[in-house]
Amino acid sequence: MPICYPANKTAFNIVRCGYIELGVRDLQKSRNFYIDILGLIETQEKDGSIYLRGLEERCHHSVVLTKSESSCVLRMGFQVENEHHLSLLHADLQQTNLYSNFTSAYGVERILQTVDPLGMPIEFYTSMSQVSRSLQKYGSYKGCRPMRLDHFNCFTPDVQKSHDFYSGQLGFHLTEYTETDSENPELWAVWMQRKGNVHDLALTNGVGPRLHHLAFWCPAVTDIIHLCDVMSTTGYLKNMERGPGRHGISNAFFLYVRDPDGHRIELYSSDYLTVDPDFVPIRWGLHDAQRQTLWGHAAPKSWFEEGSHFINTTTSEPQLQAQPIVAN
Amino acid sequence: MPICYPANKTAFNIVRCGYIELGVRDLQKSRNFYIDILGLIETQEKDGSIYLRGLEERCHHSVVLTKSESSCVLRMGFQVENEHHLSLLHADLQQTNLYSNFTSAYGVERILQTVDPLGMPIEFYTSMSQVSRSLQKYGSYKGCRPMRLDHFNCFTPDVQKSHDFYSGQLGFHLTEYTETDSENPELWAVWMQRKGNVHDLALTNGVGPRLHHLAFWCPAVTDIIHLCDVMSTTGYLKNMERGPGRHGISNAFFLYVRDPDGHRIELYSSDYLTVDPDFVPIRWGLHDAQRQTLWGHAAPKSWFEEGSHFINTTTSEPQLQAQPIVAN
Amino acid sequence: MPICYPANKTAFNIVRCGYIELGVRDLQKSRNFYIDILGLIETQEKDGSIYLRGLEERCHHSVVLTKSESSCVLRMGFQVENEHHLSLLHADLQQTNLYSNFTSAYGVERILQTVDPLGMPIEFYTSMSQVSRSLQKYGSYKGCRPMRLDHFNCFTPDVQKSHDFYSGQLGFHLTEYTETDSENPELWAVWMQRKGNVHDLALTNGVGPRLHHLAFWCPAVTDIIHLCDVMSTTGYLKNMERGPGRHGISNAFFLYVRDPDGHRIELYSSDYLTVDPDFVPIRWGLHDAQRQTLWGHAAPKSWFEEGSHFINTTTSEPQLQAQPIVAN
Amino acid sequence: MPICYPANKTAFNIVRCGYIELGVRDLQKSRNFYIDILGLIETQEKDGSIYLRGLEERCHHSVVLTKSESSCVLRMGFQVENEHHLSLLHADLQQTNLYSNFTSAYGVERILQTVDPLGMPIEFYTSMSQVSRSLQKYGSYKGCRPMRLDHFNCFTPDVQKSHDFYSGQLGFHLTEYTETDSENPELWAVWMQRKGNVHDLALTNGVGPRLHHLAFWCPAVTDIIHLCDVMSTTGYLKNMERGPGRHGISNAFFLYVRDPDGHRIELYSSDYLTVDPDFVPIRWGLHDAQRQTLWGHAAPKSWFEEGSHFINTTTSEPQLQAQPIVAN
Repeated sequence: MPICYPANKTAFNIVRCGYIELGVRDLQKSRNFYIDILGLIETQEKDGSIYLRGLEERCHHSVVLTKSESSCVLRMGFQVENEHHLSLLHADLQQTNLYSNFTSAYGVERILQTVDPLGMPIEFYTSMSQVSRSLQKYGSYKGCRPMRLDHFNCFTPDVQKSHDFYSGQLGFHLTEYTETDSENPELWAVWMQRKGNVHDLALTNGVGPRLHHLAFWCPAVTDIIHLCDVMSTTGYLKNMERGPGRHGISNAFFLYVRDPDGHRIELYSSDYLTVDPDFVPIRWGLHDAQRQTLWGHAAPKSWFEEGSHFINTTTSEPQLQAQPIVAN
Repeated sequence: MPICYPANKTAFNIVRCGYIELGVRDLQKSRNFYIDILGLIETQEKDGSIYLRGLEERCHHSVVLTKSESSCVLRMGFQVENEHHLSLLHADLQQTNLYSNFTSAYGVERILQTVDPLGMPIEFYTSMSQVSRSLQKYGSYKGCRPMRLDHFNCFTPDVQKSHDFYSGQLGFHLTEYTETDSENPELWAVWMQRKGNVHDLALTNGVGPRLHHLAFWCPAVTDIIHLCDVMSTTGYLKNMERGPGRHGISNAFFLYVRDPDGHRIELYSSDYLTVDPDFVPIRWGLHDAQRQTLWGHAAPKSWFEEGSHFINTTTSEPQLQAQPIVAN
Repeated sequence: MPICYPANKTAFNIVRCGYIELGVRDLQKSRNFYIDILGLIETQEKDGSIYLRGLEERCHHSVVLTKSESSCVLRMGFQVENEHHLSLLHADLQQTNLYSNFTSAYGVERILQTVDPLGMPIEFYTSMSQVSRSLQKYGSYKGCRPMRLDHFNCFTPDVQKSHDFYSGQLGFHLTEYTETDSENPELWAVWMQRKGNVHDLALTNGVGPRLHHLAFWCPAVTDIIHLCDVMSTTGYLKNMERGPGRHGISNAFFLYVRDPDGHRIELYSSDYLTVDPDFVPIRWGLHDAQRQTLWGHAAPKSWFEEGSHFINTTTSEPQLQAQPIVAN
Repeated sequence: MPICYPANKTAFNIVRCGYIELGVRDLQKSRNFYIDILGLIETQEKDGSIYLRGLEERCHHSVVLTKSESSCVLRMGFQVENEHHLSLLHADLQQTNLYSNFTSAYGVERILQTVDPLGMPIEFYTSMSQVSRSLQKYGSYKGCRPMRLDHFNCFTPDVQKSHDFYSGQLGFHLTEYTETDSENPELWAVWMQRKGNVHDLALTNGVGPRLHHLAFWCPAVTDIIHLCDVMSTTGYLKNMERGPGRHGISNAFFLYVRDPDGHRIELYSSDYLTVDPDFVPIRWGLHDAQRQTLWGHAAPKSWFEEGSHFINTTTSEPQLQAQPIVAN
């Protein structure tokens, strides 16, 4: 059976996707892109890193840009309910012989690091320092008015195996999925959530593990259209990769852009609530054209092929990648 | 200490506000209002009741309109994670000597009824029959495009006591609150959530228990503005009570309207995510003018005074009400 | 010099583009498309024709759909200030030996027919019967809420020659234009106005004369996005040809769709005012990618090649067409 | 007969309302309000004046803020088609014994000054220096994204007499009007246009002549809502006087704000086209509640009573005012 729901009921509660740290080659170029163009708020610049958050976020940061030799993903974290839950999660990882290690960073004292069965490094934490929200500082709204980190989307060479880990061991709920159209359909992509909307983590068939994109939630269609107008007239025309459009999957209104280092960012609006315990995941066939874009537009080749590599937590080298086991 | 957070960690998980059944005097007038004007979807008309849902909802109904001699609230339900949790909740209510009774309705076999310490009848259930969603049936979008039931707001004569019950016994999380501006501030209103946005249930100081309003979440400011245009030109001008405007509390863009029986409906958009376990509730002083409307508009007198009475579950008579203990 | 401005000051005043009559093969299919999907208002169905108007229009019709053996353009009319002006225009056409003939139709007693120097049949009239506007009948808003006919866009084999006629003889003002990028640039497309926005008539290099599209002005970006959602989920996915997007030229937010007979309709929003007598036309190079779409999206091949043929006024046969003199 | 239409056909063509010069007491406060909050573009600061324009405007300025001892209106100008027309208008004014004088200012060599029969100083000009438009400089969009000056609205003590002058002598077209509800209705307010939308000049019954407000056209409802959010959270809460709302008259979505000197500014969106020569003005009764606000909201007392006084062109003293002849 390719999918399982509801997810395994875990002893620990993963709350939501929490932060991502991106390696970027030129901090000033990145600052211009993320702050002046997209409209994120800068919390702090310190030791070669810029800490950013969305307009409604009260956590210290959801995105960290760190000066780096190459474009890469340095860390990707999920928030857990409390320290006790973090310990339960730690024990659970140890029991299944997955790598686990506690570290600290960004003033967060206890960050649990692991590597998922496909080689993707992920982290868990419970809390970070709080700052004031900008939600009602309307005078500082810019760009597409990004409110909050919404989700991560990653390439994996084995969607079924990834799904089984995140659903079976970590308790992520499947909300929508794509299967191949063969007689014995194989999972091709999954959207999985913890915070109650369509996803905190999506996994897509491809060379991986790699980050496909991170997404910010924006309040309105008009904000995303405005970003198209801004990017296309401020020197960022070539950074617009796909959209604007409406996904069949998730029903979200989207725009995909590339940052100065090629990291892909989705600006995302208007999905739906998924907290119902009797929620039944929505199935899409791989060749349903409206799955990707309700309006029929094709995604460019780059969108299927390009992604950001992860840095191996222990070696600090690029994480090895594998070819997908399901043919595209 | 007037507020407590985080909420008590309960053994059972209340998922969200789920349904409300309103007594209405003329089903056809109500149908016109809820379906043609607001844009809700009719699931079924049966035995003197019309069952309605929002565009994204897959549950059988979130609002039931039942032919009645007088305008009243017949039932108000919250969804619970599963049948085991419902039993745990049942045990918990019995242990604190609160009324509890299992009944069935709408094809839901096991509905747990109770009455909160201030006399407000509430119900709990785990699941109802599923129907197709209209989220991607864009041709059927009308009115303000109401997506889903968002919350209930009720008058209570003792906000502190109500808060203590919903936080301490049922595990609702406080997100925002209003206090009097005295040296020993008293709780005047609370916004409490289970599903991860600003509220599933708000409680306001006033003659109660009474329903102040129920709210539907709408996708965009423009949808709510369109409803103003529609109502004011289709004979519903006098049913527009307050707004459109922006609440300081919750940051929501709102419009309050009255249905043909006087039940108050809020059309609600653009609040924020509250799932963080380290979320700190936001405090507002009672005389902060921007608390109610960020733009400074005053609410009309009716908004503070009028509400819908509940029907006593056991007697089928109107529920007794008490004067608020905090002076307005 | 390829362009001339200001336009010739004529003795007569052409006010705006006024109506278009399209030959369609199945009235019911067309009705569904124009009324249920796009949201136009039906004034009348009579003698095999459906008369349509936009939400703010008080004229009897701006579009007529007439049952026909083949898809074609039957008439295309411009409004003139008064009967005296119509006579002056008549005299002017006679003086330049252009075909001119008075006829009546749709209850309009005096319609002046002519054929432009490239063979495109056009008509002029001063007034038609008035009906009530739907601008404040918000309950009848549907689809993309089309407000009014905005412009016609036509293929011509010789843009320079067409431009010279409409500017020099009819007094149309050039607002924007595309030139080839050669040393001796040739006019490739022109946008010309009478009513004070970007255009009443655009002329594009191509096999012609043919109608490229007619356009309706819509109030908001969100209305056009909604039409995308509606068309893609009501069986009209394949009728969406291009967009949504932002034109560099005119700055308009656009969507191009095809009606059941292949006639192309643009839904158009947010251009600008052009009434200034010292207005200087805006030049675009043919290979400027942002000219067509500010966001860089390419138009499909069909958009450059397909159009609706005109019916020759005197023979009732399809109007002969010529290849464009400027290479594409 | 209280109204006359169509307007007198004049030998000269007044194109549109063109500029207004406001006396302000603190240039820096005004700059902050008009540029940082509203979002106008600064063309130049020179000799104690700041020259402003809207995002689509290519004229040097539409608003001039000039350091002044008191809050007042220094000049108010309308654009005329060409110098010959200006001379014809001059002759026309002389023939009716109205004050007329040529002056120059802002680099405009030939400005024709007059005073209307009710004592309101107005000016006429044909052209000013051109600057680049910001329409496609989306990175500079701020505030409510004001596109262009839309109209002036002025108090007059005798609406009928003012109307007769602007319609009969200057050729302004009446589009909508308010009459008293008596048996012999008297004109109470008129909306008159030259550029083809609802108005370039509105005249309202009241102590006058005074400026009631000037208006900027904004592209979308969402832009005006955003301005509400910005003003209410940046220290300008008390400058929000009325709205947001929908006018019955003109159908415009509006917000009225007061600048730091009390000058009233309307942010205005979504009216309609009025170029049809057979356009019939729309009548409203004075006591029709939806005339002012379609949604039924009352305007505050200040809105009916307060306005900016004009400076007498010849004496440089405040222009004398008279009580309205029609009772309010």
